[in-house]
Amino acid sequence: MTQAPPAPDTQPDTLPVTDRTRLRRAHPRGHHDRATIDAILDSQPLCHVGYVMDGKPVVTPTLQWREGDHIYWHGSSASRAIRAAKGAEVCVTVSILDGFVMARSGFHHSVNSRSVMLFGRAELVPEMLETLFPGSTATLRPDRDQDIKATTILSLPITEASAKVRTGPPVDDEADYALPIWAGVIPVETRTLPPVPDPRNLEGVAVVRNFKYLG
Amino acid sequence: MTQAPPAPDTQPDTLPVTDRTRLRRAHPRGHHDRATIDAILDSQPLCHVGYVMDGKPVVTPTLQWREGDHIYWHGSSASRAIRAAKGAEVCVTVSILDGFVMARSGFHHSVNSRSVMLFGRAELVPEMLETLFPGSTATLRPDRDQDIKATTILSLPITEASAKVRTGPPVDDEADYALPIWAGVIPVETRTLPPVPDPRNLEGVAVVRNFKYLG
Repeated sequence: MTQAPPAPDTQPDTLPVTDRTRLRRAHPRGHHDRATIDAILDSQPLCHVGYVMDGKPVVTPTLQWREGDHIYWHGSSASRAIRAAKGAEVCVTVSILDGFVMARSGFHHSVNSRSVMLFGRAELVPEMLETLFPGSTATLRPDRDQDIKATTILSLPITEASAKVRTGPPVDDEADYALPIWAGVIPVETRTLPPVPDPRNLEGVAVVRNFKYLG
Repeated sequence: MTQAPPAPDTQPDTLPVTDRTRLRRAHPRGHHDRATIDAILDSQPLCHVGYVMDGKPVVTPTLQWREGDHIYWHGSSASRAIRAAKGAEVCVTVSILDGFVMARSGFHHSVNSRSVMLFGRAELVPEMLETLFPGSTATLRPDRDQDIKATTILSLPITEASAKVRTGPPVDDEADYALPIWAGVIPVETRTLPPVPDPRNLEGVAVVRNFKYLG
């Protein structure tokens, strides 16, 4: 999927490393610079929001979008996930699976992937935003009060976050390269396909073209 | 991605609904039958494991695979995520994004998706398993003791779980169907591409064909 144009940053180019965002293993795959973090956030709307409910973890899938130094997600004001996350500590993880890395030993099997983990306290956003579809407000049926009341938008500042990126072929033990075993990468691709119009569309309505994830 | 053949079930076809797995909204999209749950688990290896560390949520992406009534995932024995999840309450969520559902109002925008949330206590698996690549043990360099010690496999029984599935076109307010606004679905497809051999492969080695996710 394509990336959104970069938004103006008011924060440092590289985030300070905290105990939660330090990459303990595979250090070279860890990144704390905003360019790497933002590129992943802008490439993958699917995210997983983790929160604690009655002392136990819950992970809810939803869509996120980034504007500047925050990510946003929304949901029904009545939903358990939204009510529990509001004002609470969350971890939002965005992951892209790019390939299965098949090595000469089971031990060195891996995945090519890009992921970001963000930590912090989810904040309530008081006003409606244009979400994933910039410019769409002008073309859609205007929001009604009941729609706005029924929807809660949460945000998380991009202040405590880390990215992890792996690319390339397997890395085997040097001696194992002499073995007659196939090794390589099975790439995984995620893409959008041409829009499928609603059968109930009025004749002649033009397809929306301002969708930021249209590949 | 293709689905694995069904495994023999020793558990009920439909899981009992608990407070954590009750779908509170969009009831028709909720499922607790093993056929629906297993089909999603078998279609998407990427999962997000949620656990609680120092009272705060952490969500780690990894790969899962199902065998019968359990899912499994592994990681470095030294990793924070593996150490924290071992024996602890976790929530493992598996999500597939199938499309962006663009309605005539912002309020009715949605996503077509399939997801499963599993809850329970992650159990340590004492022996090595063949993981995502059935039959691969016979073709790979055998595991060494140090590999086995360095890898921890965790499992979760499929006993407390729910699935959520949305398909089809947008569902708008009836009056809005008269508006000249484009509505429809932008499908999202995830697929594997032809294997990319490691440049260091010996000449003539055959590509592995027993990968369950090869489309």
